Amino acid sequence: MTKGVLFGVGLGPGDPELITLKAARLIEAAPVIAYPTLAGAESFARRIASGLIDPEKTEITIDVPMSVDRAPAQEAYDWGAARISEALDQGQDVVCLCEGDPFFYGSFMYLFARLSDRYETHVVPGVTSVTACAARAAMPLAARNERVTILPGPLDEAELERRIEGAESVAIMKVGRHLPKIRAVMERLGVLNDATYVERATLTEEKVMPLSEAPEAAPYFSMILLTKGADPWL
Amino acid sequence: MTKGVLFGVGLGPGDPELITLKAARLIEAAPVIAYPTLAGAESFARRIASGLIDPEKTEITIDVPMSVDRAPAQEAYDWGAARISEALDQGQDVVCLCEGDPFFYGSFMYLFARLSDRYETHVVPGVTSVTACAARAAMPLAARNERVTILPGPLDEAELERRIEGAESVAIMKVGRHLPKIRAVMERLGVLNDATYVERATLTEEKVMPLSEAPEAAPYFSMILLTKGADPWL
Repeated sequence: MTKGVLFGVGLGPGDPELITLKAARLIEAAPVIAYPTLAGAESFARRIASGLIDPEKTEITIDVPMSVDRAPAQEAYDWGAARISEALDQGQDVVCLCEGDPFFYGSFMYLFARLSDRYETHVVPGVTSVTACAARAAMPLAARNERVTILPGPLDEAELERRIEGAESVAIMKVGRHLPKIRAVMERLGVLNDATYVERATLTEEKVMPLSEAPEAAPYFSMILLTKGADPWL
Repeated sequence: MTKGVLFGVGLGPGDPELITLKAARLIEAAPVIAYPTLAGAESFARRIASGLIDPEKTEITIDVPMSVDRAPAQEAYDWGAARISEALDQGQDVVCLCEGDPFFYGSFMYLFARLSDRYETHVVPGVTSVTACAARAAMPLAARNERVTILPGPLDEAELERRIEGAESVAIMKVGRHLPKIRAVMERLGVLNDATYVERATLTEEKVMPLSEAPEAAPYFSMILLTKGADPWL
């Protein structure tokens, strides 16, 4: 029997209209949809795509526990890969839903590592939160020969400071509870007033404000943008 | 009279199916479409969107001359902004087409700088070539606390070397004639065999190969990816 094809499909930052035509077509066509949930919470990826998912479809939910120890998450992806593998072996195509882009801080890479050597696999890129936040904050990210540095908020304070200091445009992902630490770094570098805070970009509950006014308690899906770009007039 | 609304619309890396639902809707609805061309060549942005553009539509073509001196390009954007402004003043919405994402090395920022203070302006993010190349090369870009550095190929050799040395995942944009220089840097850093070359990602003429096998003469729309990421198994 011909095996099914595995698709890792980026859904963009949150607004369902920022799904690509290709992602929408694949989601509507696939008999099986898979996605992770974090410790039993609603899947953000599934929420973005919900308008495209027929209720008759088979859904594989991979519940990933939150813990410092990585073994439980690894077991969850092993379990999810085994379920996806069963569907593929029966000749069914499987679409894995990914918020943003599958290969940009996405959990799809854990399924990709487990399955792509055995099944035909395609990755469909999506709009990342980085350019979505820049669009919503009206901040051009980079032009001409400018560099862009993308940093995860959980990096330690000294590392963040060193990386921001040598950078031009900076996007800090996964801000969440790291916001006070990041703000302190920006203040020390004298760039606090150039930084913008964006929360849940492109969703109805979106917030955009100067970092200096941002709440101490930021959600996981928040970002800080700092651009030191050249004059966009050329 | 109510003024028109200006949209800067990202079209993604080249495959027309990687246009977002929102971009497609706006292009189909707008009475006026604007886009730059480089020194009289075909507009890549218009080519991506061509299937969505009604022939009855007004098109504003901004021909940007290629020269080291920036004044001629500046004048071209002044001229284009004036044409767009006329349409907006007549109450017509204008969609500016942008390959990739408007704020990520896109020429839209020159129009944005000239028009966004006078007209309601919205930027619609698009899939960037960075994640499109990663998808096509089957190379996960970043997970967990990894950093991503985006560098333009025209940077000088010493600067490129310094930035790659301190980086984790690296994407080098606008490779073109800078390929031999970048390859020499990678060789000196001992990472040549970890680097991948991607040309015209997601188009039918796409090429993906190890950087060590890449042609000396690369087109402008080519990229080099280097990932030193952690084990994606977790």
